[in-house]
Amino acid sequence: MTRALARAVNLDDVRALAARRLPRPVLDLVDGGADDEVTLRRNTAAFAGRTLLPRAFADVTRCDTATTVLGTALAAPLLFAPTGAARVLHRDAELAVARAALARGVGYVHGEVSGYRLEAVAAVAPDRTWLQVYAGPDKDRTRALLRRAADTGIRVLVVTVDVPVFGNRERDRRNRLTIPLRLTPVAALRCATRPRWALDALRGNLPQAAPTDGRVSPFATQRRILSSLYPVTAADLDFLRREWPGPLVVKGIVHPADAATAVEHGVDGVVVSNHGGRQLDRAPATVDALPAVVAAVAGRAEVLLDGGVRRGTDVLTALALGARAVLLGRPALHGLAAGGQAGVERVAEILQAEFDRALALTGFASPAAVDAGCLADPPTPVPTEGLPSW
Amino acid sequence: MTRALARAVNLDDVRALAARRLPRPVLDLVDGGADDEVTLRRNTAAFAGRTLLPRAFADVTRCDTATTVLGTALAAPLLFAPTGAARVLHRDAELAVARAALARGVGYVHGEVSGYRLEAVAAVAPDRTWLQVYAGPDKDRTRALLRRAADTGIRVLVVTVDVPVFGNRERDRRNRLTIPLRLTPVAALRCATRPRWALDALRGNLPQAAPTDGRVSPFATQRRILSSLYPVTAADLDFLRREWPGPLVVKGIVHPADAATAVEHGVDGVVVSNHGGRQLDRAPATVDALPAVVAAVAGRAEVLLDGGVRRGTDVLTALALGARAVLLGRPALHGLAAGGQAGVERVAEILQAEFDRALALTGFASPAAVDAGCLADPPTPVPTEGLPSW
Amino acid sequence: MTRALARAVNLDDVRALAARRLPRPVLDLVDGGADDEVTLRRNTAAFAGRTLLPRAFADVTRCDTATTVLGTALAAPLLFAPTGAARVLHRDAELAVARAALARGVGYVHGEVSGYRLEAVAAVAPDRTWLQVYAGPDKDRTRALLRRAADTGIRVLVVTVDVPVFGNRERDRRNRLTIPLRLTPVAALRCATRPRWALDALRGNLPQAAPTDGRVSPFATQRRILSSLYPVTAADLDFLRREWPGPLVVKGIVHPADAATAVEHGVDGVVVSNHGGRQLDRAPATVDALPAVVAAVAGRAEVLLDGGVRRGTDVLTALALGARAVLLGRPALHGLAAGGQAGVERVAEILQAEFDRALALTGFASPAAVDAGCLADPPTPVPTEGLPSW
Amino acid sequence: MTRALARAVNLDDVRALAARRLPRPVLDLVDGGADDEVTLRRNTAAFAGRTLLPRAFADVTRCDTATTVLGTALAAPLLFAPTGAARVLHRDAELAVARAALARGVGYVHGEVSGYRLEAVAAVAPDRTWLQVYAGPDKDRTRALLRRAADTGIRVLVVTVDVPVFGNRERDRRNRLTIPLRLTPVAALRCATRPRWALDALRGNLPQAAPTDGRVSPFATQRRILSSLYPVTAADLDFLRREWPGPLVVKGIVHPADAATAVEHGVDGVVVSNHGGRQLDRAPATVDALPAVVAAVAGRAEVLLDGGVRRGTDVLTALALGARAVLLGRPALHGLAAGGQAGVERVAEILQAEFDRALALTGFASPAAVDAGCLADPPTPVPTEGLPSW
Repeated sequence: MTRALARAVNLDDVRALAARRLPRPVLDLVDGGADDEVTLRRNTAAFAGRTLLPRAFADVTRCDTATTVLGTALAAPLLFAPTGAARVLHRDAELAVARAALARGVGYVHGEVSGYRLEAVAAVAPDRTWLQVYAGPDKDRTRALLRRAADTGIRVLVVTVDVPVFGNRERDRRNRLTIPLRLTPVAALRCATRPRWALDALRGNLPQAAPTDGRVSPFATQRRILSSLYPVTAADLDFLRREWPGPLVVKGIVHPADAATAVEHGVDGVVVSNHGGRQLDRAPATVDALPAVVAAVAGRAEVLLDGGVRRGTDVLTALALGARAVLLGRPALHGLAAGGQAGVERVAEILQAEFDRALALTGFASPAAVDAGCLADPPTPVPTEGLPSW
Repeated sequence: MTRALARAVNLDDVRALAARRLPRPVLDLVDGGADDEVTLRRNTAAFAGRTLLPRAFADVTRCDTATTVLGTALAAPLLFAPTGAARVLHRDAELAVARAALARGVGYVHGEVSGYRLEAVAAVAPDRTWLQVYAGPDKDRTRALLRRAADTGIRVLVVTVDVPVFGNRERDRRNRLTIPLRLTPVAALRCATRPRWALDALRGNLPQAAPTDGRVSPFATQRRILSSLYPVTAADLDFLRREWPGPLVVKGIVHPADAATAVEHGVDGVVVSNHGGRQLDRAPATVDALPAVVAAVAGRAEVLLDGGVRRGTDVLTALALGARAVLLGRPALHGLAAGGQAGVERVAEILQAEFDRALALTGFASPAAVDAGCLADPPTPVPTEGLPSW
Repeated sequence: MTRALARAVNLDDVRALAARRLPRPVLDLVDGGADDEVTLRRNTAAFAGRTLLPRAFADVTRCDTATTVLGTALAAPLLFAPTGAARVLHRDAELAVARAALARGVGYVHGEVSGYRLEAVAAVAPDRTWLQVYAGPDKDRTRALLRRAADTGIRVLVVTVDVPVFGNRERDRRNRLTIPLRLTPVAALRCATRPRWALDALRGNLPQAAPTDGRVSPFATQRRILSSLYPVTAADLDFLRREWPGPLVVKGIVHPADAATAVEHGVDGVVVSNHGGRQLDRAPATVDALPAVVAAVAGRAEVLLDGGVRRGTDVLTALALGARAVLLGRPALHGLAAGGQAGVERVAEILQAEFDRALALTGFASPAAVDAGCLADPPTPVPTEGLPSW
Repeated sequence: MTRALARAVNLDDVRALAARRLPRPVLDLVDGGADDEVTLRRNTAAFAGRTLLPRAFADVTRCDTATTVLGTALAAPLLFAPTGAARVLHRDAELAVARAALARGVGYVHGEVSGYRLEAVAAVAPDRTWLQVYAGPDKDRTRALLRRAADTGIRVLVVTVDVPVFGNRERDRRNRLTIPLRLTPVAALRCATRPRWALDALRGNLPQAAPTDGRVSPFATQRRILSSLYPVTAADLDFLRREWPGPLVVKGIVHPADAATAVEHGVDGVVVSNHGGRQLDRAPATVDALPAVVAAVAGRAEVLLDGGVRRGTDVLTALALGARAVLLGRPALHGLAAGGQAGVERVAEILQAEFDRALALTGFASPAAVDAGCLADPPTPVPTEGLPSW
């Protein structure tokens, strides 16, 4: 780990390191949300507006953050979320994220849009790697993908259900980000201010070069998926349920009625997610949507939360409201850009230490012990000054 | 369409283009509100404070934004609002707006205060052009105007009821905007920074020149109207109801009791409007006033909303609260100033695309399908940072 | 009236003119509040947070702002409040305020701490001049003062009850404002940036010179009063009630129980006031305290509001919540500093025009017609950006 | 007292003086909180958001701020809180604080982590000095400490219960503050901007030098305590209750259930504290946590409040919500840094004068008279502009 990474005190510091490595349009690709980014800001602000009650007189001498999520044993209730852009940030891309998950004992949800082949990534740590897919209209293609996943030893399947159309990500439109990256004079100038990234790009390690030796081009996959965007229906859930024997998870649920539908169609897990504020702007913060989803699921599936997690107290809050674990999207990408595998590890390390401390200070000896008693009700608005803005 | 217009990502971008074309006092004429502009800011902030619930598992493969408003078939629930200042912004003025409405399939409410004669404008697209009038004390004059309107094929009449006295528009008072524009040294200096607008003004295309060839001077009309400002009473509604056989709409309703009065006197439509925040400051945001008006109208008339619409999610919110369509005032003027007809078209195009996406992400296949289930209750205050301020 | 005054669009503009005439410490003397000035800001922000409902279909062709307050006929429900510092701002001081009240038809509450003798000021307009006193322990002195007041024709007596101790006005402490003003080098430098004020001071027109020809030194009076600060009790009210045959008003009530006490001891009027935020910081905005006081008084006395009035809509709001009229403190002083009598007149003129417009837009033809129906409930917080900060 | 201290108008001014004396990392050591400092800001903002109702007609001619807290007679309900860092700020450290407490008649809670020996400090004013301890696993060590305390005449024992693990104080981590202070080139540069502090450090008066002549090294103690951080349990309370015959107080209670536990195990006092926002971020403001604790204690112990007290109105608010007195942490340290004993005295003097004024303006003649009637309900959010930010 570099000295800069070791000195990163919190996730905001890791993001600052990433910002020093990445050209602005690439950082925007990671950080941006839809429209006015109201939901993006809500995701983090809603956590900061929660009030946690510290406890005295609890025996937290032996605090343990380990847990099990859908049968996957984890050192802490953390999973790296599926994200498409990893190969634009670092040549090791998903391999680095999977290795970091293994090193820190946390989970990893590998995305269908990826810079490395599924088999290569899953081989790193098949027991803690889940696969995320977009359920498209072509059932044969999906069947083939599931077969490959099963062959690698992947056990948990996640289907994303919140992209019937593509969100309005204005930063990318303004930056006129085209993939493969074309070095227009303006773009070249911007990249020149980040020479290490530019050098990697010139050497073909980043995805503007043709994919070789076992690599897939994430953008070819993404283009194919975007061209067949498709509202997932209950019938698609039934299809997946028939095809996949292991735990099945839906990702992208906000409305409690949708959570109920998913459970009634046999899913084992529900990820409350607004796609990191990148789909419908004005959607609620995921932590605000969580309680109603937990109530609708009523114990029939495990509920996870995705979006806005930046602090150990966020993890604790999600668990107190009924989540089993949380997913980390942008923080993992920041870590990746900041230092490859070591950067992603540092993100998990920071968050795990913070979560451990939050457990002790609220008097819980383990994730299983957490309940809603540590939350003051109702949430209070919090001035946003002094808080990270991403 | 210019490259700049094509690159405009949202309505705020279109406004920025307008700001580059217009001298500051002219931009203020468009953007300003009454007193401290509290209501002006409320109109937009109240939309951003609403929370929309995305839905999964809805079949939105064939999403269609078309609708019918008071018998007028529209490609989307959008109408350009009546505004007086078009000829100060662009020589094509209302002609450009009407042509844009035709090109994009949306509606247009032509104002009595206008830079071109009613007959010339209505001829562009009589089936989608409505006429807005101020009901003054001179009934013969009103009768003559209605007769001209009927002759042009206009079917829907809108009467503005929220200008018993003129609002306190401080920007205009500070800018000492006089019409016809007199080029004081200071004004000339300001205009010189916007040479294209100044050139148009010097050539007599903007209304400081005497109106010729079928043009009317909007400011002569405006002066006449301002000098006979007049509180519209229920008796005036009865008069209009008798004189106008087609759909009759009142514009400028905020209080539910006034909506009930209007309906009892036979109107077919009610536009919830605070005159864009230009009349009574401290009035509520129109989206906050909408639900009570919808309840008071109780299905006896169609309800429209005017004020603060900047995003497709705003349109969706208005429909979810019971509106049939929304009116676009400032955005249309910004488009006009930014690029004439093409600029106004771009505004409609952007908003229609955003509305289409918002429909899909909330699981509705058409405007008719929208209901209140997509709104979280109650609205939450939202930090205004990062939002457009107009 | 100077051109600058005539161009002042609102009370904030008048303040800006005053700020250009006054050295900063003198402006601070007018503008400052207690401690952190939380209450000072609340007074104005609470008005801006109220929502007024515009009305259509009301016949407001003949709108009239005239009213009667405790038997005093006024052209509008406005009175200039008692303030101690007038002579530091302009040599005409209270004489100018009384003359402005006469010219505009509004009321004036002359303060016991004054730059001119009571007799000289009351002679200007005895029918619309009220007298404010501090009820001190020396009953003989009070009796003598009341006798002088009665002799001048003053009919209404106001007793201030919210200064048992002096508030913590930090701006004055920081500015080390000493009266008579001593021109320390630093102070001289500050005053030199405001040469017209400094010239007046050097000529002895402002109170650092010895009072002559019928003038009293307001600061001698103030020092005497401050040295005998005194909590007014119910027994003091009884004493005043016995001694004063005309209408008796208490000023400085916030708690409804105190309003009830005052009424039970025979007062005819209650001024809801927190001394302009200059006494107890954290006190509520007067407009927020008003409804409970109105309820406690229950029609047995007239209720007035003092504090935070900057707009005609503020006046309307106060009346809608049950006030009979409002007092203007800082605005009158700003007008005085900006242009003597003409400046104070301009303040009343602006506010009266705004109030007249607000009446028409909410559908009321007179102050007597105003009721709570024009207020949306509850008040909503309003972002403070874009609002005057004093 | 220096002229600068005498001119300090409020506690914020005293802090500004401290900021001029201390290198930034040392000021951060005093001012910083945990994580994003949400709780740190809540502590002060929650006081400013409270609304106090001024009263008229109360006889407050003879207002007296004296009170008794757990048998300790105090001139005002104020105690200096235990803090570890005093010796880094001023060579007189705890001796200065104890002497200031004696001079002003207020209380002092001496901390176990200290720059001078307990015996030396307690000798200053044993009747108003309490001792704070961390209850560690080594019972013999605790017994020995209690014996020393009893020998000095200390009567009240305070046990801190909110540090089962150490809070995440990011400012200190960023400043890489190491004790004893090592003068790295960067650190030396920073200290050089504060030459008086640097000179004291070089002379060995600040704790980077070896402790001599009766002094202890606070950081040796702190290191020992940090290395044996320990969740205090009810059994530890029982142990202390057996060992200590005088009043026993727990400090660091937020949850009402913990307050009940403490009372059931025999404590005489409860300090509502979140460790100045230095332990669990997102914890509520202490003033917001106070009412539920007071209700849970139900008169069986005295309740004190620690955290966020910056104004006399804060003291009054705490008392109105059921606290017997308040503790001053950062303000005492600022006073110490600003001017040793005189600085600490000035802090007490300012706050006592402000509290005295607040009592008079709310109509209370003594702390014992204060009740909840002076508080408007509920608290309202307050814009943070214009408020001190520490």
